[in-house]
Amino acid sequence: MALSLAQASDVVDAALLKARELGLRPLVITVLDPGGHPVVIKREDGAGILRPQISHAKAWGCLGTGSGGAAGARHATRDPAFFAALAAISEGRIASSRGGALIRDKEGNLIGSIGVSGDRPENDEAVAVAGVESADLVADVG
Amino acid sequence: MALSLAQASDVVDAALLKARELGLRPLVITVLDPGGHPVVIKREDGAGILRPQISHAKAWGCLGTGSGGAAGARHATRDPAFFAALAAISEGRIASSRGGALIRDKEGNLIGSIGVSGDRPENDEAVAVAGVESADLVADVG
Amino acid sequence: MALSLAQASDVVDAALLKARELGLRPLVITVLDPGGHPVVIKREDGAGILRPQISHAKAWGCLGTGSGGAAGARHATRDPAFFAALAAISEGRIASSRGGALIRDKEGNLIGSIGVSGDRPENDEAVAVAGVESADLVADVG
Amino acid sequence: MALSLAQASDVVDAALLKARELGLRPLVITVLDPGGHPVVIKREDGAGILRPQISHAKAWGCLGTGSGGAAGARHATRDPAFFAALAAISEGRIASSRGGALIRDKEGNLIGSIGVSGDRPENDEAVAVAGVESADLVADVG
Repeated sequence: MALSLAQASDVVDAALLKARELGLRPLVITVLDPGGHPVVIKREDGAGILRPQISHAKAWGCLGTGSGGAAGARHATRDPAFFAALAAISEGRIASSRGGALIRDKEGNLIGSIGVSGDRPENDEAVAVAGVESADLVADVG
Repeated sequence: MALSLAQASDVVDAALLKARELGLRPLVITVLDPGGHPVVIKREDGAGILRPQISHAKAWGCLGTGSGGAAGARHATRDPAFFAALAAISEGRIASSRGGALIRDKEGNLIGSIGVSGDRPENDEAVAVAGVESADLVADVG
Repeated sequence: MALSLAQASDVVDAALLKARELGLRPLVITVLDPGGHPVVIKREDGAGILRPQISHAKAWGCLGTGSGGAAGARHATRDPAFFAALAAISEGRIASSRGGALIRDKEGNLIGSIGVSGDRPENDEAVAVAGVESADLVADVG
Repeated sequence: MALSLAQASDVVDAALLKARELGLRPLVITVLDPGGHPVVIKREDGAGILRPQISHAKAWGCLGTGSGGAAGARHATRDPAFFAALAAISEGRIASSRGGALIRDKEGNLIGSIGVSGDRPENDEAVAVAGVESADLVADVG
């Protein structure tokens, strides 16, 4: 089961609204289905040209290991050698930084993931969580 | 100069509205800035998992050669060996099929490109053109 | 929704049983979930070392474009230039040959795909279909 | 000489049985022949989408250096720069973590390797060893 395009659009637009309220730097927001394929990607004016891939890697990395971005960031700090290996194993599809979350429905089913890149990791994560929760879904940051 | 996120969002949403009016198969729509970097990507429920890359390649291919997707498709038919080389040269970032267009402002300045994938090439192209024109911009299919 | 490991194991084992009944050459059979990620892969003794990737590409290609392997093979015959582009766009994850099928449940929902490689395309396809149908599922070859 | 499909199937099914007895998180188990090519891969329901590649890299890495996964993990801890180089040299086909083992017959001949991913490294390794030994073969973790 994957979140719908309508749901993903709502999540991304709410996240961008939050980012503008907070006055953050220009962001890219990526929402993936459970198979790691894009549903919605939006890049704000002025965001760096690698930000799409970074936000993708935050979202994809959560699905890759089955845990949220905050858990991944803690794990990477404890075991940097393994995350260097994961970067290579995944061919660069995984980022070990806050700003990514698994998206679950109210019953806990995995229905996708979100990644945000452009500001500080904790701000990226706050935007991701705000977007997901605004759509009445659960953001699992781990 | 690049089209803004607000413009790109309007283009994609208008294109999807057109696709639903026409009853097409599930689509993916990609809008890139002039540097070939994503501004908005949306994937309809049920679209195949390679469709994001195909729509990206249609949009990127227009920027790659500086001509619209219909011109590219005619060129590929006349000179398939050259397009086989382009596929390799671009590392798979170019598609030789209708459904892509350069996006220009009213003065003819290049401000981005669009790629659509999921239905027949001529239908994909009709959707791309409808989306761009709805935002008062010019779709250059070549 | 994805087929379970138990279902995928039954599909693969039934397909291999069919292959031995028919006396085919050594095969590799791959079953993927709807996101294109492996659920079960089995390679018979003596199968060539590229057969895992070929069977994967048959299964992945069906998901990539949303149509069965027989439909893909017909499309590739009509438009070889586009399939050469798809090979590059997909980074070699798609094969335009019979032997792949979408797997659907009785209600028509997409729950995965299967790819078989090692014998002639029509024999590979027969084995794929036999495996899927033995598990009371539907093989969509297109 | 490689282990047969029948042997590899027994190893993987016994390993999965052990994992369920232990109540571990969802796993992926990969068995390779001595040439590093897959014989059997099974992914449990709910396992992360990068787990197939991680289990593959644990199994492949053992064959790559000719030593078991525990030896590799110790080596990586002593010399992380060398393992960063190995990750690049192998194009991401090697993981420096417990959960991989060489598979030997009773005479000590190398007949394949196994990799397990999804739970903690020591649990992954316990499952790998249980699977191999249940088939009356030797798991060499180094």
